[in-house]
Amino acid sequence: MNRTAPTTRATVRRQSARARYDQAAIDAILDEGLVAHVGFVSEGQPYVIPMAYARDGDRLLLHGSSASRLLTTLATGAAVCATITLLDGLVVARSVFNHSMNYRSVVIFGRARALQETDEKRSGLKRITEHLVQGRWNDARQPSETELSATSVMSLPLEEVSVKIRGGPPVDAPADYASSSWAGVIPIQTVFEAPLPDPKLGPSVAAPVGVTSYHRPTKRT
Amino acid sequence: MNRTAPTTRATVRRQSARARYDQAAIDAILDEGLVAHVGFVSEGQPYVIPMAYARDGDRLLLHGSSASRLLTTLATGAAVCATITLLDGLVVARSVFNHSMNYRSVVIFGRARALQETDEKRSGLKRITEHLVQGRWNDARQPSETELSATSVMSLPLEEVSVKIRGGPPVDAPADYASSSWAGVIPIQTVFEAPLPDPKLGPSVAAPVGVTSYHRPTKRT
Repeated sequence: MNRTAPTTRATVRRQSARARYDQAAIDAILDEGLVAHVGFVSEGQPYVIPMAYARDGDRLLLHGSSASRLLTTLATGAAVCATITLLDGLVVARSVFNHSMNYRSVVIFGRARALQETDEKRSGLKRITEHLVQGRWNDARQPSETELSATSVMSLPLEEVSVKIRGGPPVDAPADYASSSWAGVIPIQTVFEAPLPDPKLGPSVAAPVGVTSYHRPTKRT
Repeated sequence: MNRTAPTTRATVRRQSARARYDQAAIDAILDEGLVAHVGFVSEGQPYVIPMAYARDGDRLLLHGSSASRLLTTLATGAAVCATITLLDGLVVARSVFNHSMNYRSVVIFGRARALQETDEKRSGLKRITEHLVQGRWNDARQPSETELSATSVMSLPLEEVSVKIRGGPPVDAPADYASSSWAGVIPIQTVFEAPLPDPKLGPSVAAPVGVTSYHRPTKRT
């Protein structure tokens, strides 16, 4: 299946003009984001858990404690929905009804599988670590065998994926443009501030450039 | 049920030291956040959708098009899980294994009901609008009857709620403190920039103070 071809489930039913089934847009959102909201069902109840993740080519990698409810449920091949949302602005309209937000979001449906081989898990963790802070895999102590076995790494294929983007100014009803009400956008930026050294850090340890010049790749519209 | 008393489902099973069942902390997170990731199940498949929301006392209000899959599913009294996550920092540890994020998140389980009465819907929309931009309900044109009937407003009781907070520096294994690897936190701020007027806005329309001095109430640790 072409990962950008919309299926019934991944097709955005409302406001389809906003929906773009564009692989480059999906990859850019996944590479910029830090948190996925991962949904799964356990005994009929939906759960939505925020998780770190990384895109690794055509799959999304998730990780967590091998003992967590989320990871043990996902490991059974349960249906999952992972949503990544980047908030770009508040859309202030002339009418209450047309207030909105500018955002970029990706919704992924599928079934995850647990990486089994130690080498495969190790390279998955490397990808997740490097997604968080570039260069960190080599700068920090790499996982021991014990740490590796305490960690589950799940792979979710990027096959059934939808993307939804809203950008630009508000859209009001024609009659409202004569209004004296202000309208426009309040842009939102995620800002990474100067790093705070661990109080237990020795004075001679300098922060690496991946930390001092921290930034996310971004393609906001 | 006391909304802060953990139930089996809302009890955080892992890392319970991080979990605080504190109503003030829950309210502060809900009042600061802008997007809820709302999970529901349709034909066995979990869906996770980003939505605007507002806290209204002891309930969470959600709104959307009356015709959306999400709102029509919720209106049947389906089980729902709404998660609000505020990301405060990247936790850079001496070991890959102890990398983490500082965050505050609230997970709400329950069943939503659709507000039926026009007055009830109107006051729910007022709450959601004021949560987004203070003063906006009176500054913008309020909803017409047609707009009200095209909008569903759902109420989710804040009864079964858990909160999870991580703050502060990394925690490494004792042996790793001798490492020459940098460790600390990269703080994350959500910054609201100067408003961009709608290009179609007349030159004489000034932005109200709720827009020019936009801020969220925050109680980050």
